[in-house]
This record gives sequence, structure tokens and C-alpha cells, in this order.
Amino acid sequence: MTDLTDLYPADRIVLREVGLRDGLQMVRQFPSTHQKQRWIELARDAGVRNFEVGSYLPAQRYPQFADIEDIVSAGMDKPGIRLSTLVLNKRGAMRALEGGAHEIMFVVSASEAHNLANANRSRSDTLREIEEAIALRKDMVDAPVAAVAIAMSFGCSIAGKSAVEPKDVLDIAGRALEAGAQVINIADTVGYGGPTEVRTIVRQFRSAFRDVPLAFHFHDTRGVGLANAAAALEEGVTILDASIGGLGGCPFAPGATGNIVFEDLVFLAHTMGLDTGIDPTRLMDVRQLIDVAMPNEQTYGQFRRAGLPKA
Amino acid sequence: MTDLTDLYPADRIVLREVGLRDGLQMVRQFPSTHQKQRWIELARDAGVRNFEVGSYLPAQRYPQFADIEDIVSAGMDKPGIRLSTLVLNKRGAMRALEGGAHEIMFVVSASEAHNLANANRSRSDTLREIEEAIALRKDMVDAPVAAVAIAMSFGCSIAGKSAVEPKDVLDIAGRALEAGAQVINIADTVGYGGPTEVRTIVRQFRSAFRDVPLAFHFHDTRGVGLANAAAALEEGVTILDASIGGLGGCPFAPGATGNIVFEDLVFLAHTMGLDTGIDPTRLMDVRQLIDVAMPNEQTYGQFRRAGLPKA
Repeated sequence: MTDLTDLYPADRIVLREVGLRDGLQMVRQFPSTHQKQRWIELARDAGVRNFEVGSYLPAQRYPQFADIEDIVSAGMDKPGIRLSTLVLNKRGAMRALEGGAHEIMFVVSASEAHNLANANRSRSDTLREIEEAIALRKDMVDAPVAAVAIAMSFGCSIAGKSAVEPKDVLDIAGRALEAGAQVINIADTVGYGGPTEVRTIVRQFRSAFRDVPLAFHFHDTRGVGLANAAAALEEGVTILDASIGGLGGCPFAPGATGNIVFEDLVFLAHTMGLDTGIDPTRLMDVRQLIDVAMPNEQTYGQFRRAGLPKA
Repeated sequence: MTDLTDLYPADRIVLREVGLRDGLQMVRQFPSTHQKQRWIELARDAGVRNFEVGSYLPAQRYPQFADIEDIVSAGMDKPGIRLSTLVLNKRGAMRALEGGAHEIMFVVSASEAHNLANANRSRSDTLREIEEAIALRKDMVDAPVAAVAIAMSFGCSIAGKSAVEPKDVLDIAGRALEAGAQVINIADTVGYGGPTEVRTIVRQFRSAFRDVPLAFHFHDTRGVGLANAAAALEEGVTILDASIGGLGGCPFAPGATGNIVFEDLVFLAHTMGLDTGIDPTRLMDVRQLIDVAMPNEQTYGQFRRAGLPKA
């Protein structure tokens, strides 16, 4: 069984590069299998260790993820990286368990409306499927860590901002933990939240669930993504998602845009004296690969142009 | 004499729109006098009250500010707005005192190297000139509020990041207050700072200077500008600079890019439950004016595309 503390060491900040998953969800262009492998290698060479590399979705409809089995099996042979894959349903879960990554990220939405749009079933049905899939892990030799992401945790672009309260997120988190989740990933899928709300959720989560590993997934839809990340870091959160170049968006979340920008997040963490193990200037090699692989896709971020401050 | 508490009411967040000053410093295109007046009116209609509308600089070299006297005198006739102008030297100060805005923003740099590049004299000489100019205000009937901005307060892109420490900023602030400054504006001219440093400076400033009105001026050069703004707001800072569309940059600060984005900052403040009096959706009228007046200039910001969360 993959060791949880190996995946998320308690003594350091873990920045998860989710560009190969969330970053490719809505794109028209996407990297080749070889380019994806180079993406991972170049990011690893810059110090990135944790990657979310795709979703188990039907290849006809999501050709960008058709090579996920190849990406995982090639990646598992490389030293110094930890791989996660995302699943939205039972069929995906079966494939993911076969696939052999270090972690499976299950998804349930804080909003019933978004869960129906995203997974075509109720939150309760999704949680039951997650429980069944996690139970299947028990007999595996190299069982992946089971993480559950809670989408739309700061409001829902289908049901509305006020349709989701922190107590809804905590309720879903509690049910996910009962289903066997080892990690909870709280996602602001559409960039509705602000730093005060982030602090509230972290504190309520800690109060309810103590030391359960807690990750956040922010989108920069309204410009405050890094302010939210800073608030999470200040609250002691050590696991954050981001994508190089700020790629990203959810096809079933109206108004969703890119993830927070990985390289800008690295700069932010370093200004706060936090060690990420990542050299943001070397991440520019991945930016160049993205430019080549996806020349017409919109990317984001300020660090790329400015670079490090003068020493 | 302009009333300080009228300019900066203690019970509300004051977001200063500095696009007509900092936003125009490095541009090749700039709005006509009429467009600048519409800019102010449209922003006021959205709830903006405090504007920095230009610098007193030689018109031959800075044609974008050649109409500053007209902008100020027309603006002073309009209800509901408060105008500030920036001065870099004694000649500018004389013109500004004639010009009649509600506030004069003097500038001194935390870094000797940048002060020499920006103002062509030492910090001590600049502070002496500021003191002389402030003294001249004493006999005026409608004397403007005297504010002093401290450029490069989080490190200098000429002398280096480590060339400026918080104690240097506090030292300059103390000397500016001795010279008669009523407001201190701490500027991260080149986006070197992070939220932890912002908190440190606010706390040290409060410890040294108690209730002296304190403003911050952030640039989003490396993507963390709004995280810094959030930290300042959480520390109780009530005055922040920003520019609509994130226009901006200093001609004598290598690597400088835009100010933090005004409309994204309004969204941030509102997520934190802070009242700005500003409707960010109505600011989009100014964005449209900027598109027309300066079609080839780079603008920034995420709120414009996303709009408000679904209610």
C-alpha cells in the first residue's frame, strides 16, 4: 500500500501539479504522450514531485486522456515522482485501480446540482460508489492512497454562491472519510471563494477532523486564487493544487477558468519562507513545452515574464 | 485645508484608482483629456471616490500628463470625488500646489539607487524638498493633504531584493513624518514582496507610528499582488492603491509591470466582508473606455471575464 506520509510528507509544502489533468479538461489542443512524459520529467527536474496526470474518462469524448494508462505506467518507473489520477465514476475507479498510480482522487461535489451535471448521479450515489471502490483497494498489494476532492466547495456556478455553506463541505468531508478517504481536497472549482472563507473552512475542518490530510484546489477565476492560497498556507495547509501556466477548467462548471498558476504559487510560498523544493525558473522549461504543444491555448501567470527578484 | 478624515474616512476601505497616474507612466497610447474625464466620471458612478490623476512631469517627455492641470481643475468641480497628484521634485511640487488637488503624493524611495534613478537626487535631498514643499502649504486656504509614497519598499530592482529591509522603510517613513507627511504610502514598486513581509511592515509601522494613515501600493509583477492586498486588509490597512485593468509600471524601475487590478481587488475585499462602496460590474464601463482609448496596451484581471458569482 502506498504510504500516505511518503505521498504527503508532513514536514514540507506539497504543491501538486494538476496541469495534465485539470489543465487538459477543456482544451482543444493537448500534448502528445511523449510531450506529457517530458512535461513530467522537466517539472520533476525543477523539483515538482506530486502530479495529477489525467482522468479516467471515455477516450472518444476525452481524447486528451486516452493515453492515461501509458502515462501512469511510464511515470511509475521514474524516480522522484508521485502520481495521482482522477475518477468521476465506478467505471473510472475500476480502471484507476488497475492503472496503479500512487493515489486515486475521487470527486464528489458539495452541490447536488453540480454533482448531477458532473457525474450524472446524486452525491449520495457518488459517495456510495467511492466507498465501494475504496473497499476494493483493501486486498491490493500496491493499493493507492484514496483521496476525495469536494468540488464547488465555495459556491456552485449552477446552484449559486449561497447554495454551498461550509457545513455542507464538512458534511461531505465527513461522509467521504467514513467511506474510507485518507485525504480531503477542498476545491473552489469556479473561483467563488475568498481568503476569509478559506480560513473558516480550514479551522472548521481541523476542529472536526483533526490531522486528516487537507488539500486545497483553487481556481483564479476572479483573480483571488493566490490570496486564497496564501490564506491556506498561513492556516497551516501543506498541500495545494496548481497548474503550470494556470491551465484548467471544468467542462461541467459554467464560468470555470484556470487553476492558480503553479510557478507564481512557488514564488508566493518562497516569499513566506516556506520550502517547496521547487525552482520556479526551471519550471519555465515546462512553459516552453506547453507553448509548443498547445500554442493556441490561453496560459496565465506573471512570474514567467518577471522572473526572480534581483538578488 | 483639505480634511484628512474626509479624504480617508476611518470607517471604510478606500481603494485609490491610480490608473490615470501610474497606469499611464509607461504607455505609448493614452486617453484624451475628454476620455480621462469620462474615466473619472464612470469610475465615480461605480462608486470610486479617490483618484490619483497624474504626475507633474515635463510635458515634452511625458505628454500623457500634459493636461494634468485641466484634469484637476475639471475634477475639482465634480461632486463625490477626491483627487491626488504625484510629484517627484520641487518643480512638480510648485505646480501641484498651484494645481489645487485634494492631496499631493510626494515620492521618495526606500533605496538610494532607485531614488537617484527616479528623482536624480539623494533620498535626503528629496526629503528636504518634500519638507520645504509641505511647509509652503501652511499658508494656503485649500491646502492639500500631504502624503509620502515610499517606493521600492520590498526590495529594489536596481540595488537588489536584500538592499531594502523593513527598518529602512520605517526610517524613511519617520523622516517623512518629521517633514510633515500626513499619510504614508508603502509601495512595492516591482512586486518583490509577499504577504508575510506585508504583515511585518504593517505591525512595525503601527508599533512605531500608531494611527498615522497607512496606504499600500502593490504591483502584481509576480502574481502575488492580491495576496499582499489581502494580508494588508487582514492587518487592518484601509487604504490601497490599484488600477482598473491593472495598468501600470515605473519607467525607472526595471522589471516593473502593472498595478494590482482594481476590479479584482474590489471582488477580493467583498469576499472578506469589507465595504468598498464600489460595484465592480460597473467598473467594466471604464475597462471599455480603456479598450477604446488604449487598444494596444496590455491590461490584466480576471473579474472582467468572469463577473460576479451566480447569486
